[in-house]
Amino acid sequence: MSSNELWGGRFQGGVAAVMQAINNSPAWVQLRLAPYDVQGSIAHANMLMTQGIISDADGLLILQGLQEIVGELMGGKFPYRAEYEDIHMNIEMRLRELIGDAAGRLHTARSRNDQVITAFRLWLRAACEDVSDSIADLQNILRTLAAQHVETIMPGCTHLQPAQPVSFAHHLLAYVEMLARDAARMQDCQNRLNESPLGAAALAGTPFPIDRAATAKSLEFARPMANSLDAVSSRDMVIEFLAALAICGTHLSRLAEELILWSTPAYGFVRLSDAFSTGSSIMPQKRNPDAAELIRGYTGRLNGALVNMLTVMKALPLAYNKDLQDDKEITFQAFDALMLMLAAMAGMFSDITINKEKMAAACSQGFLTSTDLADWLVMHLNMPFRDAHHVTGKIVALAEGEGKQLHELSLAQMQAVHAEITNDIFHVLAPLSSLNSRTSFGGTAPSQVREQLK
Amino acid sequence: MSSNELWGGRFQGGVAAVMQAINNSPAWVQLRLAPYDVQGSIAHANMLMTQGIISDADGLLILQGLQEIVGELMGGKFPYRAEYEDIHMNIEMRLRELIGDAAGRLHTARSRNDQVITAFRLWLRAACEDVSDSIADLQNILRTLAAQHVETIMPGCTHLQPAQPVSFAHHLLAYVEMLARDAARMQDCQNRLNESPLGAAALAGTPFPIDRAATAKSLEFARPMANSLDAVSSRDMVIEFLAALAICGTHLSRLAEELILWSTPAYGFVRLSDAFSTGSSIMPQKRNPDAAELIRGYTGRLNGALVNMLTVMKALPLAYNKDLQDDKEITFQAFDALMLMLAAMAGMFSDITINKEKMAAACSQGFLTSTDLADWLVMHLNMPFRDAHHVTGKIVALAEGEGKQLHELSLAQMQAVHAEITNDIFHVLAPLSSLNSRTSFGGTAPSQVREQLK
Amino acid sequence: MSSNELWGGRFQGGVAAVMQAINNSPAWVQLRLAPYDVQGSIAHANMLMTQGIISDADGLLILQGLQEIVGELMGGKFPYRAEYEDIHMNIEMRLRELIGDAAGRLHTARSRNDQVITAFRLWLRAACEDVSDSIADLQNILRTLAAQHVETIMPGCTHLQPAQPVSFAHHLLAYVEMLARDAARMQDCQNRLNESPLGAAALAGTPFPIDRAATAKSLEFARPMANSLDAVSSRDMVIEFLAALAICGTHLSRLAEELILWSTPAYGFVRLSDAFSTGSSIMPQKRNPDAAELIRGYTGRLNGALVNMLTVMKALPLAYNKDLQDDKEITFQAFDALMLMLAAMAGMFSDITINKEKMAAACSQGFLTSTDLADWLVMHLNMPFRDAHHVTGKIVALAEGEGKQLHELSLAQMQAVHAEITNDIFHVLAPLSSLNSRTSFGGTAPSQVREQLK
Amino acid sequence: MSSNELWGGRFQGGVAAVMQAINNSPAWVQLRLAPYDVQGSIAHANMLMTQGIISDADGLLILQGLQEIVGELMGGKFPYRAEYEDIHMNIEMRLRELIGDAAGRLHTARSRNDQVITAFRLWLRAACEDVSDSIADLQNILRTLAAQHVETIMPGCTHLQPAQPVSFAHHLLAYVEMLARDAARMQDCQNRLNESPLGAAALAGTPFPIDRAATAKSLEFARPMANSLDAVSSRDMVIEFLAALAICGTHLSRLAEELILWSTPAYGFVRLSDAFSTGSSIMPQKRNPDAAELIRGYTGRLNGALVNMLTVMKALPLAYNKDLQDDKEITFQAFDALMLMLAAMAGMFSDITINKEKMAAACSQGFLTSTDLADWLVMHLNMPFRDAHHVTGKIVALAEGEGKQLHELSLAQMQAVHAEITNDIFHVLAPLSSLNSRTSFGGTAPSQVREQLK
Repeated sequence: MSSNELWGGRFQGGVAAVMQAINNSPAWVQLRLAPYDVQGSIAHANMLMTQGIISDADGLLILQGLQEIVGELMGGKFPYRAEYEDIHMNIEMRLRELIGDAAGRLHTARSRNDQVITAFRLWLRAACEDVSDSIADLQNILRTLAAQHVETIMPGCTHLQPAQPVSFAHHLLAYVEMLARDAARMQDCQNRLNESPLGAAALAGTPFPIDRAATAKSLEFARPMANSLDAVSSRDMVIEFLAALAICGTHLSRLAEELILWSTPAYGFVRLSDAFSTGSSIMPQKRNPDAAELIRGYTGRLNGALVNMLTVMKALPLAYNKDLQDDKEITFQAFDALMLMLAAMAGMFSDITINKEKMAAACSQGFLTSTDLADWLVMHLNMPFRDAHHVTGKIVALAEGEGKQLHELSLAQMQAVHAEITNDIFHVLAPLSSLNSRTSFGGTAPSQVREQLK
Repeated sequence: MSSNELWGGRFQGGVAAVMQAINNSPAWVQLRLAPYDVQGSIAHANMLMTQGIISDADGLLILQGLQEIVGELMGGKFPYRAEYEDIHMNIEMRLRELIGDAAGRLHTARSRNDQVITAFRLWLRAACEDVSDSIADLQNILRTLAAQHVETIMPGCTHLQPAQPVSFAHHLLAYVEMLARDAARMQDCQNRLNESPLGAAALAGTPFPIDRAATAKSLEFARPMANSLDAVSSRDMVIEFLAALAICGTHLSRLAEELILWSTPAYGFVRLSDAFSTGSSIMPQKRNPDAAELIRGYTGRLNGALVNMLTVMKALPLAYNKDLQDDKEITFQAFDALMLMLAAMAGMFSDITINKEKMAAACSQGFLTSTDLADWLVMHLNMPFRDAHHVTGKIVALAEGEGKQLHELSLAQMQAVHAEITNDIFHVLAPLSSLNSRTSFGGTAPSQVREQLK
Repeated sequence: MSSNELWGGRFQGGVAAVMQAINNSPAWVQLRLAPYDVQGSIAHANMLMTQGIISDADGLLILQGLQEIVGELMGGKFPYRAEYEDIHMNIEMRLRELIGDAAGRLHTARSRNDQVITAFRLWLRAACEDVSDSIADLQNILRTLAAQHVETIMPGCTHLQPAQPVSFAHHLLAYVEMLARDAARMQDCQNRLNESPLGAAALAGTPFPIDRAATAKSLEFARPMANSLDAVSSRDMVIEFLAALAICGTHLSRLAEELILWSTPAYGFVRLSDAFSTGSSIMPQKRNPDAAELIRGYTGRLNGALVNMLTVMKALPLAYNKDLQDDKEITFQAFDALMLMLAAMAGMFSDITINKEKMAAACSQGFLTSTDLADWLVMHLNMPFRDAHHVTGKIVALAEGEGKQLHELSLAQMQAVHAEITNDIFHVLAPLSSLNSRTSFGGTAPSQVREQLK
Repeated sequence: MSSNELWGGRFQGGVAAVMQAINNSPAWVQLRLAPYDVQGSIAHANMLMTQGIISDADGLLILQGLQEIVGELMGGKFPYRAEYEDIHMNIEMRLRELIGDAAGRLHTARSRNDQVITAFRLWLRAACEDVSDSIADLQNILRTLAAQHVETIMPGCTHLQPAQPVSFAHHLLAYVEMLARDAARMQDCQNRLNESPLGAAALAGTPFPIDRAATAKSLEFARPMANSLDAVSSRDMVIEFLAALAICGTHLSRLAEELILWSTPAYGFVRLSDAFSTGSSIMPQKRNPDAAELIRGYTGRLNGALVNMLTVMKALPLAYNKDLQDDKEITFQAFDALMLMLAAMAGMFSDITINKEKMAAACSQGFLTSTDLADWLVMHLNMPFRDAHHVTGKIVALAEGEGKQLHELSLAQMQAVHAEITNDIFHVLAPLSSLNSRTSFGGTAPSQVREQLK
């Protein structure tokens, strides 16, 4: 049976090869939807039987056939035939081969439009779960590492310039926070999309006495969607999903960038394991942070997918348009990219080596405790902040001019800038003192970091 | 006092004009943040007093000065001076003019980094509310119009080809559903961003005994953010906000496209009021749907803003980087664009004229009830759906060949395709019968549409 | 030989599965580069021999082996093994199997970095040619159709509102012009990228006495690139290529949109052949313009690819970074999309049916000749344009009020608006007169359209 | 005269405030077009006179009035009134005030559509020139700096890992090459867009006997555009312009990223002058590379503008649509952003301080000459490259294990890996030897770099 015949016998010309090329979704995309399509069909068939729309005999035959197809799919033995255009027609045709004409009754009170979007929503729901799980894995790995480095001191930067000493654990936990919001976005997205479009039919509903609440319930959707036109033509949940992926990917790109920096000899803060580095064909000494670079680059895939889908949807009139066919391929590719990014990031951190000495050494450069100096002036000399800032600036300029760190200046030198400074100042100029002092809620003092870890 | 001096007296060279040009954020952006900045400062000053970090005398002076500034801002009399770079420094300088040196104490235990992001989060929180309100207004207008058109029949399309008759109200309510999800996204975004970064200081927290819970509470944030590095360097809430705007804008672009189509003489379904149409300088007969076109085009602004911010954030190491300065201008422009889109759409629908006759006439072209014919075959002849589909295809081809509508064929002609068809078939071939029959939940039958309206 | 060994024997750990997944480029991407990689290697091997860097014996063996590989590739018998990571290593390994240790000498004075980018530039050069050819095909089909429709009258629109009658040929030729610029962009892109990076080695050049001019010449590059760092780290030609594809795709999306509109029963201007339309599973009467919709939707792929690559390249330090690995997959997918769009568009227009009657009928609605009326007032009554515009507006309002077309008003009615109007006015109020009158260069008068066709 | 009246007196309702808000383009956008609009009008008026379409008396009056307006514009005294919607109507109204009713004749044989796009093309042509000039300025500054640093040695990186020593001049010249292609793209864009749309009228040409070749010539366009529909509805030149800006901006973002890295204490390769760095409000020691960060961030504006315009144009039917109104604001903002980026980059490099010692010191870490070692093995021991690679890998692993650089190993240690290595090896293990040896065309050897500088 040619796809020409599938369209009802009215078309007299053949389908041009180019049309087939642009029209056919790749088999891998289609097969990925398969289990969700069958799941939807089982719910639909059960409901048709219950409602007496099809006979029990036909219904049971259909369910039996669908179970056989589930088996074929799981066993990798399902015969996907590209000439049937998509997985839905493939399954329908296969069902017809297995159980005969009763197969035709499965399509009663259902259209391809609501059928496809039901399967896609089921996939999306599961995908939100998968992403959340992978985020949780990465968070756990980061938290475990953080727990070992609460007192590991490193330069906290702004403008990539060392600013103040921070706990390495504190730095890692900043990403744990970002990831927590990423997971929350996944959850919100999942909740919002968890509505059943099944029964919307082509666009307007159906005259058959279907029970949409029943199919929604059996597919564990929160409720049937309230408007049939909306059900088949909206893809905001896809854009929302892709936007959430892109945001998460952007977070990972930031962490990847830092790993790349920290892996340079100039920093030397971390050493990635052999498993996540690769060599060079001409420079054998290179330990390239390939996984981190790939994560950083893959951000492009996510941003691209988001723009792709936004472009597709722009100014599209209701209801279903063929432009929407691309939504699954775009989404699957973006999902695969992020899942790989999360796994690679988790892998890198699971056997990374931290060089505490290099981190600590970097804290004794760059006047990292100048804020502490300013704070001391405010606290102990009751100076207004702006004035303290001004005095500190002069002392730093002095140290810079002499090529010294702040604690290497003499008291006399500091007093030359401001006479009231006392020896007590040296207590706050050491990086570790600075770290320990920042005990405000959410601050980098080890006591606070331990709170965050709980 | 030059901006050179502001940076602590260390810089010896001047600031090049080009640097000033690229560095300065426009005054309109800065002034927009002003009320939120003052709000944050008031909360901070109160807390500093309560905690004994500054004296009551200084604190009360500061609060008094800030109140005076609030008055100046509200009265449009605040003297914004571009040489002070941003609103925060402008307010600080103004405060110093008003109350003298005590002003300098306001910056105690606070950095520009946490100060700015606090103000921005307060703005974003209010913006989420504003967008939600505008969405609700548009929904109300659409619902009101829908209530008048429950039984107005129009062709429901797929592939822009008329497919089945639908209620015009049903079509409008599809957008009400989309907008409901847009509002829900705003709500989620608002909830997620409603955390206080105040007290994170530059990046690491502060040694002063501040009370972050207190400032969070007085600013009506749900809680203080748990990690100071995250607090000053994350902008995922901005991207999420922009993504939600872009999705809503995409919905509006779809509705705008439909208005443009419906306004053409070929359709003639609606007539936009003079207020939302414009004329042409050379073709006086034109009634151009300018507002709808501008809405459609503005989608570009939203997608562009989203890509802008995603590009800015890609691979940015922690913590604050100057790249982030652009976040507010990007966001304000996108917000203004969407608010205008929502208002223009509401305006158009508030005085649109619906041409029911043209809508109804369009339903009697294009074999809109062929699905009803197929469904009749399944229901009454117990035909498998695929076979019914096949028979229907042949009858449509016959009608098309003869230049007739389905109900204009004779029974004999139909029986020539399938012998068991009876006169009863003519009951389902009229568009209105079709509409009334689609009573499945969320379907287009008036009974269902009235349910949705509740 | 494991890929571990490939990196020089230094790595002691294994490569994690996830690393392999993120690191490996798909086989289809790699195989597509294969012929260009071999081409580059042949040029390199010849040069190495000529320069005496490798012996003639080794060189001839290498060339012989490469020829054998060409045969395998063309015959589809090349054994691609994913464990060798990419096509370059696969070919190197295969060469070693075929000719033994001499294979190792091919990599002399060359790095993977310059090798890969050389192959990619060769591919891009050919791709520019392919796109240009496909554009030319589409232009020819549009021109052929235009030649048959010079005097076919249709409403020219602004704001999608009919404005003035135009020749259908004129409308088609507007796209021919756009496509000409698209082809010119391809040509510019091709010229700019046609420089040889071969010999840049890893990033800094090589101490071997290579002859870059010779390899450039044998690969038909215009010249060797002047800076080795630039040669291996720049990808602006990729972004330029993708931008040119996106612009062309945007043009096609506009034409696709028009086809979709023209195919609706409301317009009925064209009928797409069966080959480029498809049916619906539930609405057998539908003749859906699927190919046009897919073209419109594929614009998203091109915009997405462009953003993807721009995101990848943002802020990437010199020289080669692993992020760049994705460039080929992104580019191949975008190229495939556009080629399919061009072919589908050409296919649709090659057997489209034009409904001249519907087009002509649409010209007698909507006061399409009101500009002609205004022009007549200027030309014959010497009225300033703005005044003529004003008078025309009043006459149109009058006609609209009476439900008539302009030429259906009586002279008396028009004179009531402006007394000097004479019977001569009726000569310009017919659509065909309007068409014929617009004889300015590039205008829609058939005489001008025939000029464009030459 | 209200804008209501401008539209021909037909509209009876007022224009809603929201409509005005969304419809009005900002004054700064409009005023920026003003000189180009007047330029187009002067060419048009001259042609109308020459062709006898308007009288000499009227024509001279118009030209005189336009000259007066030029004077007002240049003197900043032109009275821009927002109620006239755009600059074109403002100028028309001002002309009427200055010269009376003759002003109305200027609009003869011209529409707002061709008028606006003519002005915009003139602006774009000038903008291409401006960008090219700014690129040339930056290239000169980079070349001047490069000339001083031909023999300044720094680590060339791949994967941000030091790979081989390169000349700092060579690194700078890589960007000079990229910028040369950016300028060439501007030139191509300029050439392609330099066609005259004037005379296309609203969309279809005009019945007046205009001379488009004459206006094209007097405006220095290469030719009149061949198709009137294309002339008013295409914006591919805008997208091409924005894409070229985005590519150039991406190049600048890469250089900005490197400046940011090089300014860190970890690298310390450069010191930006005070003019292009700024301080911190709380950390007085910071020398933040703000200008470089802003350049990096501004890349987002360019990518955003490109996506904005691509979104606007997607699926827009011919001819003019109101969506296009946004094109100028989008483009002007992107142009301003890139011009600022170029100027800021030029400024930074014009007074940057290079720390040669730090650059040189970084070359003696990281086994930067291991490729030289491998090359020596190939050249002197006639080893196949892969084997040489293998041996080198082992020696590097040995050095790494011992915490030594390559030249710090003893000959005995190297011979233990490969017996045939001789003392001669030490000649190639010093970074400077490596640099000097890479004499292949375009390589980093000073001799080659000097060639590039010419």
